[in-house]
Amino acid sequence: MTVKAYGAYASDKPLEAMDITRRAPGPHDVQIDIAFCGVCHSDLHTVRSEWAGTLYPCVPGHEIVGRVSAVGDHVHKHRVGDLVGVGCMVDSCQHCADCEEGLEQYCDGMVGTYNGATPDAPGHTLGGYSEKIVVHERFVLRVTHAEEQLAAVAPLLCAGITTYSPLRHWNAGPGKTVGIVGIGGLGHMGIKLARAMGAHVVAFTTSESKRADAHALGAHEVVVSRNAEEMAARAKSLDLIVNTVAAPHDLDAFLTLLKRDGTMVLVGAPESPHPSPQVFNLITKRRAIAGSMIGGIPETQEMLDFCAQHGIVADIEMIKADEINAAYERMLKGDVKYRFVIDSATLAA
Amino acid sequence: MTVKAYGAYASDKPLEAMDITRRAPGPHDVQIDIAFCGVCHSDLHTVRSEWAGTLYPCVPGHEIVGRVSAVGDHVHKHRVGDLVGVGCMVDSCQHCADCEEGLEQYCDGMVGTYNGATPDAPGHTLGGYSEKIVVHERFVLRVTHAEEQLAAVAPLLCAGITTYSPLRHWNAGPGKTVGIVGIGGLGHMGIKLARAMGAHVVAFTTSESKRADAHALGAHEVVVSRNAEEMAARAKSLDLIVNTVAAPHDLDAFLTLLKRDGTMVLVGAPESPHPSPQVFNLITKRRAIAGSMIGGIPETQEMLDFCAQHGIVADIEMIKADEINAAYERMLKGDVKYRFVIDSATLAA
Ligand SMILES: [Zn+2]
Ligand SMILES: [Zn+2]
Ligand SMILES: [Zn+2]
Ligand SMILES: [Zn+2]
Repeated sequence: MTVKAYGAYASDKPLEAMDITRRAPGPHDVQIDIAFCGVCHSDLHTVRSEWAGTLYPCVPGHEIVGRVSAVGDHVHKHRVGDLVGVGCMVDSCQHCADCEEGLEQYCDGMVGTYNGATPDAPGHTLGGYSEKIVVHERFVLRVTHAEEQLAAVAPLLCAGITTYSPLRHWNAGPGKTVGIVGIGGLGHMGIKLARAMGAHVVAFTTSESKRADAHALGAHEVVVSRNAEEMAARAKSLDLIVNTVAAPHDLDAFLTLLKRDGTMVLVGAPESPHPSPQVFNLITKRRAIAGSMIGGIPETQEMLDFCAQHGIVADIEMIKADEINAAYERMLKGDVKYRFVIDSATLAA
Repeated sequence: MTVKAYGAYASDKPLEAMDITRRAPGPHDVQIDIAFCGVCHSDLHTVRSEWAGTLYPCVPGHEIVGRVSAVGDHVHKHRVGDLVGVGCMVDSCQHCADCEEGLEQYCDGMVGTYNGATPDAPGHTLGGYSEKIVVHERFVLRVTHAEEQLAAVAPLLCAGITTYSPLRHWNAGPGKTVGIVGIGGLGHMGIKLARAMGAHVVAFTTSESKRADAHALGAHEVVVSRNAEEMAARAKSLDLIVNTVAAPHDLDAFLTLLKRDGTMVLVGAPESPHPSPQVFNLITKRRAIAGSMIGGIPETQEMLDFCAQHGIVADIEMIKADEINAAYERMLKGDVKYRFVIDSATLAA
C-alpha cells in the first residue's frame, strides 16, 4: 500500500513530500491511520545524520497517534476504530530477559520506529510523518484520552514516557523533592508528571523568562540555574533530578543539589561530552548519575492511562506537514511551547 | 598525656618521630593503646598536602587496632583490656539524619581521625601513627578476631569497610556477578569480601602479573583490562562494579561491562578528573555511576564481625615506624601486597 509521507532523501536535503509503502497487516499487525505526529529532537538529529548511521530516504516521527483501520487475524488487543498510539519502538526480539520484563527499550533487538532494521521496503523503518503505519500489536498502545485531546497526546509517546519512566523507577512521589532540569519538550512533561505523582517539584532553567511558565506547568519552585545564590539555597535538598538537557553542561552544579543517596538521571545524550563530573561529589554523599531511555511498553501504557486519569497532555503548537523544515529551525532556537505536532491530514495536500 | 608518634611538620618534609598530647578520657571516651596501624593512600595524600587543607604537624593513620587501656565513667560498650579498632572517623554531630541512621560518614559534622577539627591540641585531630589515641566510644569498634590476627585486622578499618559498604548497599551476593577493578589495598579486600558474600567475582587488573594473585585472593575470574578481547567477552555481564582505581582512567571501558540496571561504584577520587564518561553508555542500559565513602559505624562493626566469622583479614607487610617514608615510595609504585601496617611498638624506639 502506498501512502503519503514527509521525509528527506539525504542529510543535506530538506524534508519534502514523498510516497512510501506500508506492508499489508500480518496476523499480529495493527494498521493505523495516523492523525497526528509529534516532532522530537531525535527526528532532527536522525534526518540530518547528526548521529551516525542514518539510512535514506528517512521519514522521522515517533510520537504517533491515530485510529486503527485494520487488524490481523490474531490481534485481540486492538479493534478497528480504536484510538491508539505508537512511540519510539515498533518491534524487539520479544523473548529476551528485557522483553520478558516489559523493558523492550533495552532489548538488543529493539527496532526503532524509524531508521530501524526491517524486512519491509526499503529495508529500514519509516516513521510517523506519514498517513498510515503498520505495527505489531505488542507495540501499539491504547489511548483513553478524549478524542479532542488527541493531538496533545502524541508527545506523550516519547517526551512523556522518557520522563515518566525515570520518575517512577527512582520513586518520585509524596515526600520526595524532584528537580527537573530544562523546560523544553521533555522538561515540561517532567514537571507535569512529577507534580501529578505527588512530588515537590523544583524546575531549573537557564532563563529568567521561563520562571512564570514553569510555575504554570506545575513547578512548586523555579530556580534560575545561572543564579549562584538560588542554586546554593537548594544544596543537598533534592532526592532525584531528571536532567533533560542534552547540550554539554556542568553536571556538578546539579549533583551538589542532591541529598545523600540522591540520583541525577540523564535522559539526553550530548553530541560532545559533558565536562567530566567530580567524583568527590558522588563519593561524599553516595550520589549517583544514571541514564534512562524512553520506557517499556507496559510502562508506556501505564503512563498513558495515568495521564488520561490526571488530565495530562503536552502543550503543543500544531503545524502542517510542509512547515516541518521551518519548525526544525525554531526548535533549534527553543522557540516552541513545548512541542510541535504535525496534523497528518495535511500530508495529503 | 604525651605519647610518641610519627608525622610530618610540613608538606615537603618526611615523616619523623614526634611527641604529641592526647586528652584525658572524658566520660564517653575510650583510651586505646595502639598495637598496629595500617598505611592508607589517604595518609600519603594528606601528609604531603596533595589535597587542599592539611594542617601541621600532621600525624596520619586511620586503620587503628589496639587494646582499651582506660574508659570514661559513662562508657558501657567497651572495657579495659578489650581488643578494639578505630577507622576513618572519631566524631560526628551525632544527631542529624545521617548520624541517626548510622551513616556518620555522610554527616556534615564528621570529624576525620586525622586533620579533623577538634578542641584538643593542636586544634586538629592526630591519627594512628602513635602509641595511644582517645576516642568517643561511639567511634570505637569491637574486634573479635583472634589476637594473633590483630595486625592484619587493621586495614579492615578503612580498606575493608570502603569496599564492604558498597558491596552491601548494592546487594552483592549469591546470583550476582561483581567486578572489582584494581587489585591494591582496597581491591584485594573487595575480592575477599565479595567472594565471602557469595557473589561471582571478576577481578580487573592492568597487569598480567597479578592474574594468579587475584585468583588466590578469591576471584572466580580475572580480566586483564588492557586486553580488548577479554574485556569484550565480559560485555553486559556484571551486576555491580566496585572501582577502586583513583588514577584517571577510561570509565566507559567498565561501564559497558554492566548489565541493564548495573551500577559502577567509585570509591577513589582522582586528583585530576577521569575522562568524561559517555552518557550513551548510561542511557542505553539504565546504568549508573555512583560514589561511596567508607561506611557508618554500625556497618563497620557488621563488617568486622563478618570478617571474623569468615576468617577474613588483609594481606599485609609489617613495617617499623621509621620505615614509613620508604614504604610510601613503595606504595606509590604499587610495590606492596597489599597493605603496609606499622608495628606501633616500634614508635618507642
Ligand atoms: Zn523522541
Ligand atoms: Zn528482547
Ligand atoms: Zn584510608
Ligand atoms: Zn550528623
